[in-house]
Amino acid sequence: MSDEQTKNTVFIGQKPVTAYVMACVTQFSTLTAGEEIVLKARGRAISRCVDVAEVLTRRFLEGTAEIIDIQISTENLEGRDGRKTNVSAIEITLRKKSPPAMSSKNE
Amino acid sequence: MSDEQTKNTVFIGQKPVTAYVMACVTQFSTLTAGEEIVLKARGRAISRCVDVAEVLTRRFLEGTAEIIDIQISTENLEGRDGRKTNVSAIEITLRKKSPPAMSSKNE
Repeated sequence: MSDEQTKNTVFIGQKPVTAYVMACVTQFSTLTAGEEIVLKARGRAISRCVDVAEVLTRRFLEGTAEIIDIQISTENLEGRDGRKTNVSAIEITLRKKSPPAMSSKNE
Repeated sequence: MSDEQTKNTVFIGQKPVTAYVMACVTQFSTLTAGEEIVLKARGRAISRCVDVAEVLTRRFLEGTAEIIDIQISTENLEGRDGRKTNVSAIEITLRKKSPPAMSSKNE
């Protein structure tokens, strides 16, 4: 299991950006270098999903997390009235970087 | 100029999705294979930008346009009150495909 790429998914919904940022920071702390988290969102939450990815990589996990893939797609959902609607979706994959080589400071 | 990658940019704002879809279909008709259109959006319009890209590639320009790149970023904007705010942005690059080889049907 250790050599398998573990994919952790965080679904971005209607909560504030900071709620998802904190959830990801916590989850990232349990990952080893090379492991990934996938942020997923649909519809209007797509903008918030991009916000979360940007806040993470530019502030809270700067130097620790990098965006390695962004995919968009269309999902066919059935509403409560039985009608089907298309909704756009996004998946942003973040990977934990290797820690910076501390030895270079000691040389 | 003909061998230069011409980049046409469409800014996605508050209009309905169909307005941008139609603008892109029109612009795509003027492109030759390999040329690109870049869809750009900021903030809440990011979701709409993804909608436009999906509607184009899955319906109106299916088989003609393909998504070749998606980039997200943060822009530092100054509001009317002089305060600076960060806003997320997206850029989706669509490329015109080569027309399908019609000769295969005649073989």
